[in-house]
Amino acid sequence: MDMNKNIKKKNCIVAQSGGPTVAINASLAGVIEGVRSSDCFDTVYGSLNGILGILDDRLMNLSECADADPSFLERLKHTPAMYLGSCRYKLPDYMDDDSVYNYIFSRFEKLDIGAFFYIGGNDSMDTVLRLSEYAERIDSDVRILGIPKTIDNDLMVTDHTPGFGSAAKYIASSLLEIAHDTFIYAVKSVTIVEIMGRDAGWLTAASVLARNSYSLAPHLIYLPETDFDPDLFLTDIRRLLTQYNNVIVAVSEGIHDAKGRYISAGESKEDTFGHSQLSGAGKALEYLVKDNINVKVRSVEINVLQRCAAHLASATDINEAFASGSRAVTFAEEGVTASMVTMLRTGNAPYCIEYSHARIKDIANEAKCVPLRWINEAGNDVTQELIDYLTPLIQGETSVTYQNGLPEYLSVAHLIQTEQKK
Amino acid sequence: MDMNKNIKKKNCIVAQSGGPTVAINASLAGVIEGVRSSDCFDTVYGSLNGILGILDDRLMNLSECADADPSFLERLKHTPAMYLGSCRYKLPDYMDDDSVYNYIFSRFEKLDIGAFFYIGGNDSMDTVLRLSEYAERIDSDVRILGIPKTIDNDLMVTDHTPGFGSAAKYIASSLLEIAHDTFIYAVKSVTIVEIMGRDAGWLTAASVLARNSYSLAPHLIYLPETDFDPDLFLTDIRRLLTQYNNVIVAVSEGIHDAKGRYISAGESKEDTFGHSQLSGAGKALEYLVKDNINVKVRSVEINVLQRCAAHLASATDINEAFASGSRAVTFAEEGVTASMVTMLRTGNAPYCIEYSHARIKDIANEAKCVPLRWINEAGNDVTQELIDYLTPLIQGETSVTYQNGLPEYLSVAHLIQTEQKK
Repeated sequence: MDMNKNIKKKNCIVAQSGGPTVAINASLAGVIEGVRSSDCFDTVYGSLNGILGILDDRLMNLSECADADPSFLERLKHTPAMYLGSCRYKLPDYMDDDSVYNYIFSRFEKLDIGAFFYIGGNDSMDTVLRLSEYAERIDSDVRILGIPKTIDNDLMVTDHTPGFGSAAKYIASSLLEIAHDTFIYAVKSVTIVEIMGRDAGWLTAASVLARNSYSLAPHLIYLPETDFDPDLFLTDIRRLLTQYNNVIVAVSEGIHDAKGRYISAGESKEDTFGHSQLSGAGKALEYLVKDNINVKVRSVEINVLQRCAAHLASATDINEAFASGSRAVTFAEEGVTASMVTMLRTGNAPYCIEYSHARIKDIANEAKCVPLRWINEAGNDVTQELIDYLTPLIQGETSVTYQNGLPEYLSVAHLIQTEQKK
Repeated sequence: MDMNKNIKKKNCIVAQSGGPTVAINASLAGVIEGVRSSDCFDTVYGSLNGILGILDDRLMNLSECADADPSFLERLKHTPAMYLGSCRYKLPDYMDDDSVYNYIFSRFEKLDIGAFFYIGGNDSMDTVLRLSEYAERIDSDVRILGIPKTIDNDLMVTDHTPGFGSAAKYIASSLLEIAHDTFIYAVKSVTIVEIMGRDAGWLTAASVLARNSYSLAPHLIYLPETDFDPDLFLTDIRRLLTQYNNVIVAVSEGIHDAKGRYISAGESKEDTFGHSQLSGAGKALEYLVKDNINVKVRSVEINVLQRCAAHLASATDINEAFASGSRAVTFAEEGVTASMVTMLRTGNAPYCIEYSHARIKDIANEAKCVPLRWINEAGNDVTQELIDYLTPLIQGETSVTYQNGLPEYLSVAHLIQTEQKK
């Protein structure tokens, strides 16, 4: 932007979109802090429920929030899910209908907006791409920047995504605790643990970090990057049951057979963005074992807590999410647009990250899967390279404060419709 | 026992049984510490896999473990599940067959045992009762003492049970985090959260603690102590959806209709002790809403982590579990037998507990449910009295140490069969 300090400062809008993570509010805090310490930008507005808040005129003045409460940013950093709310709104093709774009950029002009930050995953980067293309088309100088967040870790170019490290830490810790829960019985048993991750196996792979000096659980790990063979699976289970009393299996919700059919005991629907809604890979494997091997078996679905358990966040993740937000502001000041903030890993010993940016058109609508070279040949485990990649991301604990026995999070009263409350 | 210091000290055996909790190893640590500082007792042996370890001669010398590693007891206090393993073994009626009893008491004599401590829930107290009756029958002076533990909080006489407070804290924290996860969408939704508790609703009731100044979630709470009416439920959901975007329901796995039939989408089997194995009350309510109300709906099952997530234990619970264990040793020294350690609440402001003991025959094979006066008339919420009862039990956090990003627990290598491991 190369703004001169004498020129009137412009304002910013930030919004959040897609599914929740533990780190997305840390990125929001980073943007707010970035704008507060900026020479180019003045006020930062938050758009409620993603891009919809601009369309519906539901904006909140986040600079005022931070000014009014000195603890606001620190508490925001440790509050899970999305302080500004989310949406699953897909922008129409501007070639078909540019009225929505027209309205958004008229709002930008009205509010004297110099930069728009969208914190989100793959679908949200589609919105960043479309707004960037439209901005170029109308020769707007509003900087459009994406800030990555997704527990799925499936965004292109960036080494990893904010939100992933905390989910990975939650999953590995849960596997460790489930292993302790399982080991208590001398009776043979199989425990199937189903983990989120439709097309990319990063989250399921993170279960490997639960292994330690006394336990090799999870003994089998199945990612959606390879085909799942029920016969080989049963052979593996039978073999492991001769070695261990309690066999633990980590499985992605998205595993499929060689013909691409999902291994699932449940139904399948499609969401706004055309994804299949999966449930039941864990249940399906539970039934498979039950029907073929005479052994106690159960399945556990690691539920939505893998994306919202802020009490067990990775400090590395939260700090990187914050930095991604504040760097986005710096990049906008430097004139960067039509881009997403990226992290480049420059070393593992010691672990080191450099922040950069990449063109949004190289990122949006592409998914980064686990490289096949990081999965063992049998397709039932991951390699040491993948362990080395994952390990730094779950390091460190955050200082969650507790009030009356529960984690103390920032109020999201502004998201909860209460006008008709008694 | 009134032993004189000049008389040779006797030894003790301790074992754990039933389902895991976060606090049962703290009770074990309490027993070990109690014996270490005892004038009457010498060595404490741990029996692996409950009473089975005595039958199979799988005992470990816990006094030596504590002597060898100064951090052993502190780490044991914070390790989830059961360090000694568990069993679901039910002792036969000694009137039918006393050979097992004969063997157990011959082992007691051989090892010079003065006291046997069994840490467990309702089924384990049945074992304590049977051993106590047999001891009286053969005029044995071995003290038989039960130490309560169950996340279900359904043991008679005692104000509450060790293990419950941590599970309650995990459930309330999870509900709070799930609420944050839910509030992000402006689209109307219903979220059903299924919580453990077959016959007693204590754990489900604990979800009420998630309510705070900005959120009344869970908006509905259904316990198994009352009959569940699907029509009233749907009426409640419809009413709440006019007030809130996102309605959250906490439901016990054991809810049933007026005829006593479980509300369940799943199958039902029976375990060793004749209980029905339930699954699917949450799924059943999900389908009920889906079929009758045009709204986004999902169900979440709070999985086994509610009983093994030691990283989120209640400090009050862990401290009380430890004290219950050490008090059991004191009571045994005083000659108490055929009894279970109990906690009596003497005050709520400030919260105060006194440890005592009660006759095992007044406890075993009875279950303590939530009193009906602590459930509202509509059967869809709990009263302030129940909140006041629950609140002190989840207070305080434990100092879990982390290693390489994960909670550091004590090795349970002795429970894991590894002889054929490569």
